[in-house]
Amino acid sequence: MKTSSAHELYVALVHYPVVNKNGETITSAVTNLDLHDIARASKTYGIRQFYVITPLADQKELTQKILSHWISGSGAVYNHIRGDALEIVRIRDSIQIVLEEIKEKTGQLARTVVTSAKKNSRSIGYADLKSKLRSDTPHVLLFGTAWGLGPEILEMADYILEPIMADSDYNHLSVRSAVSITLDRLIYEQPISL
Amino acid sequence: MKTSSAHELYVALVHYPVVNKNGETITSAVTNLDLHDIARASKTYGIRQFYVITPLADQKELTQKILSHWISGSGAVYNHIRGDALEIVRIRDSIQIVLEEIKEKTGQLARTVVTSAKKNSRSIGYADLKSKLRSDTPHVLLFGTAWGLGPEILEMADYILEPIMADSDYNHLSVRSAVSITLDRLIYEQPISL
Repeated sequence: MKTSSAHELYVALVHYPVVNKNGETITSAVTNLDLHDIARASKTYGIRQFYVITPLADQKELTQKILSHWISGSGAVYNHIRGDALEIVRIRDSIQIVLEEIKEKTGQLARTVVTSAKKNSRSIGYADLKSKLRSDTPHVLLFGTAWGLGPEILEMADYILEPIMADSDYNHLSVRSAVSITLDRLIYEQPISL
Repeated sequence: MKTSSAHELYVALVHYPVVNKNGETITSAVTNLDLHDIARASKTYGIRQFYVITPLADQKELTQKILSHWISGSGAVYNHIRGDALEIVRIRDSIQIVLEEIKEKTGQLARTVVTSAKKNSRSIGYADLKSKLRSDTPHVLLFGTAWGLGPEILEMADYILEPIMADSDYNHLSVRSAVSITLDRLIYEQPISL
């Protein structure tokens, strides 16, 4: 099995609209290691494109500098494995623009999926979403930075995934861990034991 | 289910002996975000202790400073969630010392488990290891930094876990992603769908 063509699945890391500690809507800063870790996980699991969403000009410029360093700059000479993954990153202003881009590419409106550390009445399980992914319909997994996605994004999303470890006493994974585990649950096919 | 008492399972992040790009044995530097991400994942999945292994005095001191900042310093005031996770971190000189410590605590010699991005003739699957964890025997998951664990560690380990995505064209996850996915595969119990 080559996973690179398994699903019409996209990942988006959202820096606006997200909330801060006090629940206020903010634009968060792009974190260097988010780019690397999530690009490497996305590439490993055959994700079509990893969108970094920020409307801020200086943040877009900084992100582009990091990408260029590893894709074509001196970083590429030192370690091309980083660039191979970062090539699937696209910097875009908003979720809306990402949806328009996917529609242009695939001819279909993508379904949006959000993850949340809190259980929601609309939450669906991983097995349920996994079965929905076995189609040509594009899906975008939206992940929030800072203290999570703005409430309007949860409201507009087609699906809300249940918390990763709903029963744990502690459920505060980094977004890097959350993306990795979510992709594994949705894409990895356990080998049948003989 | 509360996962905090689920398994007698430990995580160790190894900074020596690991290999560099050229396969030479080195001691790597401790990375700040490794501490945070792996402590948060370990805490979420009910890991007993997260050992950070380095023999270097300055690295031990730096790591202790980061821990203190979040556990009892100004970081704890700003965000206690970080400290709650970092409390399970222990800084130790070597894998040997970790094994002695676990033996003293549990009365048993822990089984060592390594992960590797390369398939090995001794590799076992996740379901197989998961069933072995359903016992009182302590197990330590050893993760390498830099370009991976030294070959002598792979040789001495009781078990070698199969690569996370053996069939992918690209299999270069960050150690933060690798730990997260490994814990999820070994500990998460999928709810039975009705």
